[in-house]
Amino acid sequence: MRRNTDNFPLACGNLLRGATNGLTDIPGVLVGHCTLRSGDINTGVTAILPHGGNLFRRKVAAASHVINGFGKTVGLVQIDELGTIETPILLTNTLSVAACSAALIRDALARNPEIGRTTSTVNAVVGECNDGPLNDIQAMAVTEDHARSALAAAHGGPVEQGSIGAGTGMTCFGFKGGIGSASRRIEIAREEFHLGALVLTNFGRAGDLILPDGRRPSPPGAEAGTAEKGSVIVVLATDVPLEHRQLSRVARRGGAGLARLGSFWGHGSGDITIAFSTANPVDHDEDQDIVSRRILSESRIDLLFQAAAEATQEAVLNSMLAVDRFVGRDGTVRTSLADCLAEAAEPFS
Amino acid sequence: MRRNTDNFPLACGNLLRGATNGLTDIPGVLVGHCTLRSGDINTGVTAILPHGGNLFRRKVAAASHVINGFGKTVGLVQIDELGTIETPILLTNTLSVAACSAALIRDALARNPEIGRTTSTVNAVVGECNDGPLNDIQAMAVTEDHARSALAAAHGGPVEQGSIGAGTGMTCFGFKGGIGSASRRIEIAREEFHLGALVLTNFGRAGDLILPDGRRPSPPGAEAGTAEKGSVIVVLATDVPLEHRQLSRVARRGGAGLARLGSFWGHGSGDITIAFSTANPVDHDEDQDIVSRRILSESRIDLLFQAAAEATQEAVLNSMLAVDRFVGRDGTVRTSLADCLAEAAEPFS
Amino acid sequence: MRRNTDNFPLACGNLLRGATNGLTDIPGVLVGHCTLRSGDINTGVTAILPHGGNLFRRKVAAASHVINGFGKTVGLVQIDELGTIETPILLTNTLSVAACSAALIRDALARNPEIGRTTSTVNAVVGECNDGPLNDIQAMAVTEDHARSALAAAHGGPVEQGSIGAGTGMTCFGFKGGIGSASRRIEIAREEFHLGALVLTNFGRAGDLILPDGRRPSPPGAEAGTAEKGSVIVVLATDVPLEHRQLSRVARRGGAGLARLGSFWGHGSGDITIAFSTANPVDHDEDQDIVSRRILSESRIDLLFQAAAEATQEAVLNSMLAVDRFVGRDGTVRTSLADCLAEAAEPFS
Amino acid sequence: MRRNTDNFPLACGNLLRGATNGLTDIPGVLVGHCTLRSGDINTGVTAILPHGGNLFRRKVAAASHVINGFGKTVGLVQIDELGTIETPILLTNTLSVAACSAALIRDALARNPEIGRTTSTVNAVVGECNDGPLNDIQAMAVTEDHARSALAAAHGGPVEQGSIGAGTGMTCFGFKGGIGSASRRIEIAREEFHLGALVLTNFGRAGDLILPDGRRPSPPGAEAGTAEKGSVIVVLATDVPLEHRQLSRVARRGGAGLARLGSFWGHGSGDITIAFSTANPVDHDEDQDIVSRRILSESRIDLLFQAAAEATQEAVLNSMLAVDRFVGRDGTVRTSLADCLAEAAEPFS
Repeated sequence: MRRNTDNFPLACGNLLRGATNGLTDIPGVLVGHCTLRSGDINTGVTAILPHGGNLFRRKVAAASHVINGFGKTVGLVQIDELGTIETPILLTNTLSVAACSAALIRDALARNPEIGRTTSTVNAVVGECNDGPLNDIQAMAVTEDHARSALAAAHGGPVEQGSIGAGTGMTCFGFKGGIGSASRRIEIAREEFHLGALVLTNFGRAGDLILPDGRRPSPPGAEAGTAEKGSVIVVLATDVPLEHRQLSRVARRGGAGLARLGSFWGHGSGDITIAFSTANPVDHDEDQDIVSRRILSESRIDLLFQAAAEATQEAVLNSMLAVDRFVGRDGTVRTSLADCLAEAAEPFS
Repeated sequence: MRRNTDNFPLACGNLLRGATNGLTDIPGVLVGHCTLRSGDINTGVTAILPHGGNLFRRKVAAASHVINGFGKTVGLVQIDELGTIETPILLTNTLSVAACSAALIRDALARNPEIGRTTSTVNAVVGECNDGPLNDIQAMAVTEDHARSALAAAHGGPVEQGSIGAGTGMTCFGFKGGIGSASRRIEIAREEFHLGALVLTNFGRAGDLILPDGRRPSPPGAEAGTAEKGSVIVVLATDVPLEHRQLSRVARRGGAGLARLGSFWGHGSGDITIAFSTANPVDHDEDQDIVSRRILSESRIDLLFQAAAEATQEAVLNSMLAVDRFVGRDGTVRTSLADCLAEAAEPFS
Repeated sequence: MRRNTDNFPLACGNLLRGATNGLTDIPGVLVGHCTLRSGDINTGVTAILPHGGNLFRRKVAAASHVINGFGKTVGLVQIDELGTIETPILLTNTLSVAACSAALIRDALARNPEIGRTTSTVNAVVGECNDGPLNDIQAMAVTEDHARSALAAAHGGPVEQGSIGAGTGMTCFGFKGGIGSASRRIEIAREEFHLGALVLTNFGRAGDLILPDGRRPSPPGAEAGTAEKGSVIVVLATDVPLEHRQLSRVARRGGAGLARLGSFWGHGSGDITIAFSTANPVDHDEDQDIVSRRILSESRIDLLFQAAAEATQEAVLNSMLAVDRFVGRDGTVRTSLADCLAEAAEPFS
Repeated sequence: MRRNTDNFPLACGNLLRGATNGLTDIPGVLVGHCTLRSGDINTGVTAILPHGGNLFRRKVAAASHVINGFGKTVGLVQIDELGTIETPILLTNTLSVAACSAALIRDALARNPEIGRTTSTVNAVVGECNDGPLNDIQAMAVTEDHARSALAAAHGGPVEQGSIGAGTGMTCFGFKGGIGSASRRIEIAREEFHLGALVLTNFGRAGDLILPDGRRPSPPGAEAGTAEKGSVIVVLATDVPLEHRQLSRVARRGGAGLARLGSFWGHGSGDITIAFSTANPVDHDEDQDIVSRRILSESRIDLLFQAAAEATQEAVLNSMLAVDRFVGRDGTVRTSLADCLAEAAEPFS
């Protein structure tokens, strides 16, 4: 993480930010990274834990939304059938999904020896983007150990952003992309709740970026209009009690945040949202036939929609503001949006 | 209704039937019919009321499933976005959906004068099948008054089945079809619940019908394999507390009931399921930001799936057993499956 | 139509506009309106004809996308099962869908007397928004005759925009909304194609509108943040040969156009896209078992995505720029965005 | 493979079988197995190659359908966005998906060194069932080498069925399950086409099985009604030219075949269909902007629906008829349906 993104006043929308303006503003949510930088290897793993306990035993309510499905994220079929997530969410490069998936399975087996014996198997959730332009993706350098390191590194407090973890080798609108996060406060029933977004940004054509104030910065030397071969994964978390259908509606609004930045969800981009709520956990061994739930009254859901759009949009910008200029595979260079804006601002300072 | 369908031992599956083996075994659910029979007009309207009160004010949890979408049912988009039904469900012939929809809207306006003024509009739900072979469907004979008659006739107790209401001019596997119903008892948490099915049957090719005991009755003189131009609407109701996602899963199992009868959900058939739960009604004017719900624990849901498949299958059979031979438009004749089975049985009696 | 929208340089994106910057730039597409303005009645019907021939006999390839499903549009189930549209598309107010649907059915029956006799029935397509704040929607003033008038009025050439047809009583971001249109030129295989959008705009909260240049005009006196109870229907047309799956992908991009304007697809808004291609018409009486089609190579589809996002965004702006100040039911006033921008511009002129 | 399944006259439906009654009746389709049997390890990999060439360069049209999503199959998101499959399809046990996925990726990289360099990445497709009751699934015994062996073993001609490949440790309706296949001939436009099914069967509760002739065999000693913790993967192949939407419709009919056997698509079962057509391959490097396609006229699609339902149903039965009694992990025994039927038949022979 290069710098405090708060120095760059690119606030999106008008809801209040959470304390750290990150996914971890949702109580219990943890984020960790494992970064690989060595020669042409510029990649990594980012782990998101909906809570720090045994997720297989205590699942969280969840939903996904496929904005554009040119992607290889795994685990969505079961999320949308059962409405739950039962492992951490790992993010990585496209060709390392299998390694991360295997790590999640072994981790679940270690904690729950009855998996595949006396109880069902486990549904690993792994999202990905293609960091090929900056990383030797064919090396498939990410191992199960790297995935375990990211899981072990998970912690609360401010989310480390930029060229870190899965974000190490990513590109966004022609600038250096990576991991970004943002959050919004939501007051419901006189209680304070939060919705947060963590994004892995590798989408958008150079020249298409629109800032909230209307500026359209373009990386110097980039050829405009080159087709997207990227992707973006948006993870949304909230402590507002939502049922699956409501989470599905909230997940869709991640796409609005991307569109406001100038994206049209390009053909070659796997744009996928996963949303979960830490309220209403589901016990794997529930012994009650009928359980009680608190659920948001639908007429209040616009607050969540607005927060999802704003936090997604801002998290993407943060992913580009928290990075330095980056030299990747074969010397390929990505400019920092932060540098670009700072230079543009200099005449006025 | 011609005869007690219990005389024909075509029980499907092994769960216990409800008291009347019909949709109205679910407490509060009402069913009414308006039948039009005059010359070439052989059609009508069937009304299903999830409860007898003001449905716009007190909506029921719901979901739909499109088994095969060659159909003109209206209202599904909003059911699946919001997870609720806010009018009675009307069934009719394909070209009379508009009249029934208008009747539901006017009924809702009369009860709720603030619709479209100080509150939102109303989502009418109308299912349909094409009764053209037996009814002069081009006459568009069903009026808003007929729809109102069906609504006014709604009552509890045994469901009238066969060539009645929307079922008047329907054809099923080459036999006379119509309205059928069945129900199953479900014990959960030491409470007795029910799941019921009401079907409007107008699907299946002559020669494709398979009875639960393996017999394959075919209407005499029917040309086997004629393409389906029919449809079937399956309405499932339960008092088990289910959220939208669970209702959506249950709704899908209507298709299993149809397949067991020999259907492959033909191209030309609009095969649609609508499922609702009378538990957890949703107040239009909910003043709580967060509400409490009882929800079935997911691991018990197989009981509902089995009940949905069995009740749908049996309801279809009941629709064909509760009818006499029928002479429709231009003298077109439909044999009764009940007659067909009775004749086949005679040598043995 | 008040004024040439070209006076207001609010161009969206960077693709070239079609000759009239409207849906009718797609060869063969016709648009007509029927406007009702009398006392508290401020509503109407807009008709979109994919071509001027018999649509039931010669269907067009189509797909739909539900951005947010709080809406009552009819016909989508069959569009997405069969991938075709077989009637004109009518737009109207929410409670007049039934009347428009009946008109489409009667029109199809008149042209195709074998419907419901020797061939299948017909799937009417009607989109809607709730114009209740400016129109006495409870009067259900639109009749089948009005729908027929809109159909009869359909013509090529520039699309009449603003407070006309279905757009008469609509509201958008607190300003007067209505009918808007825009188009983009697309060069593929050295041929010139087009993609056009026609929108019925009744969505967006006052204060949320963002212009392409970053300005955020707000109607004077409007209370910011009032919940959406609106809707928007986006109709996209193209002559590029696309199969259903591709049209479905293009349809989704309508949502990107809306999001760029500041919408987050509010809970109470029925936001629906219908897309069709005039290439590859489908004969109702196709006598070939296997037909030949030209289909866009998928790797070129970004052009269509970009055009869909841009044309949708610009069509919405045009719907607000082509109107005068409007006084509706009970004297409710809607400001013109065009006036608002003109006043803001005066000091500089 | 134990015996010729033709000895058991459990034909489903009435369409003619293909020459080998298997998936490989579709010209070009290859199937291979790698079987692991050693101590408590009873598992394997089955490979399905839509054609023997470079699938990444020459993709096949495809679609998937989730009948019940309690499953971990990977690759479906991209199949349904782009309508193509670009690797072989591998089937294996639930916890070995990652190993098979990695093997497919490395195989694609070896054949196409530009993946992730100058062109996009690759979407591996792997289906799975949980063979935990008969296999030490926690051992994760399947390696990339095993996957490669299955790929290398792929051949045309009769499909080896039963306790082989991925089917080694599977259970179906309480009997031994495994790999099954069946096919149907389809005459269209005076040409002979085929549709075939290959299934990996691990679903169904003991006691629920219904044979086509109405018999209901139950494995001796099995406890009826035990919840499904299984799954079934249905792969459908055809040489009829179908577009994605049509393949999606055909894929759905796999569920009809399962339901006819007595399944209600249980909660704990991941029931998934993948369908592809070998007609209309898609070139990765297509240089034409607009391509020509032959497409089945929709009105002929019922033949495909019927074939899909029949072939799926019969393939499941074949998976149970081609096996011997099986002793798996910890001495757990699975009866052979073939034995069960043979014993029942003896008194009559």
